[in-house]
Amino acid sequence: MAEQQIINKVNGIDLGVLQSTVSAIQQEPDLGKCRFHVRNKWIEGNHNRTTISSFYGAKQENEHKQVFELNADEPPVLAGEDQAPNPVEHLLNSLAACLTTSLVAHAAVRGIQLDEVESEIEGDLDLRGFLGISKDVPKGYTDIRIKFKVKSDENNMEKLKSLAEFSPVYNSLINGTKVDIQIEPKQQSRDVGVYKNRPRL
Amino acid sequence: MAEQQIINKVNGIDLGVLQSTVSAIQQEPDLGKCRFHVRNKWIEGNHNRTTISSFYGAKQENEHKQVFELNADEPPVLAGEDQAPNPVEHLLNSLAACLTTSLVAHAAVRGIQLDEVESEIEGDLDLRGFLGISKDVPKGYTDIRIKFKVKSDENNMEKLKSLAEFSPVYNSLINGTKVDIQIEPKQQSRDVGVYKNRPRL
Repeated sequence: MAEQQIINKVNGIDLGVLQSTVSAIQQEPDLGKCRFHVRNKWIEGNHNRTTISSFYGAKQENEHKQVFELNADEPPVLAGEDQAPNPVEHLLNSLAACLTTSLVAHAAVRGIQLDEVESEIEGDLDLRGFLGISKDVPKGYTDIRIKFKVKSDENNMEKLKSLAEFSPVYNSLINGTKVDIQIEPKQQSRDVGVYKNRPRL
Repeated sequence: MAEQQIINKVNGIDLGVLQSTVSAIQQEPDLGKCRFHVRNKWIEGNHNRTTISSFYGAKQENEHKQVFELNADEPPVLAGEDQAPNPVEHLLNSLAACLTTSLVAHAAVRGIQLDEVESEIEGDLDLRGFLGISKDVPKGYTDIRIKFKVKSDENNMEKLKSLAEFSPVYNSLINGTKVDIQIEPKQQSRDVGVYKNRPRL
């Protein structure tokens, strides 16, 4: 007799996979502890490149299917070559992507079907802070606004907002996050490679 | 008689261009007020795509040389297809890129030559927050650590750390940032295009 596999997808998300992950973490909370990590290498001027190959979660290092590469540069007015988005645009991308994923996945779990999700996001940043022109001007974003347009039952909108708010990037930003910076001299040149069993920083 | 142009570059950064921008903003502070903005579109499941085409600064909308596209997805354990970095990896990329750019550019202005800059960055995130398993667990990153290795005079290390701290993404994260979310129903389908004279959100 042929085996049958029933896949229960909402919004393109396999609820069986998600429920398995949730159940496993409920039974063993340590499985939920993740350490995401990336490496960055300065290329020249304002151009630098990040590589992402694996993450720690479910008590082990998990390789991505491929090594991802992301580039950052600055526009000409900031003495860059404009070869890639700049870091503060990358931040808006991470926030928009995270709010969208959170909204879509949590809606799926609750059986809320979505047909389309689009957003525009913008942030206010006064360069006098970053450039050191005025110490009274904040160096970071002061306000970020995101406006979603969602094709779904009109009665879902307030609920969807509360689901988007599960977003880890959103919570990192609104609550603030500790960031520890260490800088040490590099003795000799070596390539940034892909590596397993990485030590903790 | 042939014209001569002297370009003064440190760390690959044209100091003349940067100094022109600083002088212009010193004389007219409003030139420093920027609004960066991106658009995001849900593709399917945990996959979504951001497009970046322009930014507001120097009292006008400035087109990038090209439209940039960034994708986000999730690994299989979170019911994704692992086609792109996930949003919290994108956040680490934006922070590493911004700290690196800030370090390199501010070093250039101060005449500090750098030969190499590399970094590893990692962040702790407990999925019980995002998945709604425990209300007591923070949804965002609790701690982020970045370790730089810099090939430069060993006496520069403490100074370089203070220069990296000009980073707008770093300051947005450590100080926290207001994020306003609006969600409204979308009436009919239309493509996300590139547009000028965009209204403010």
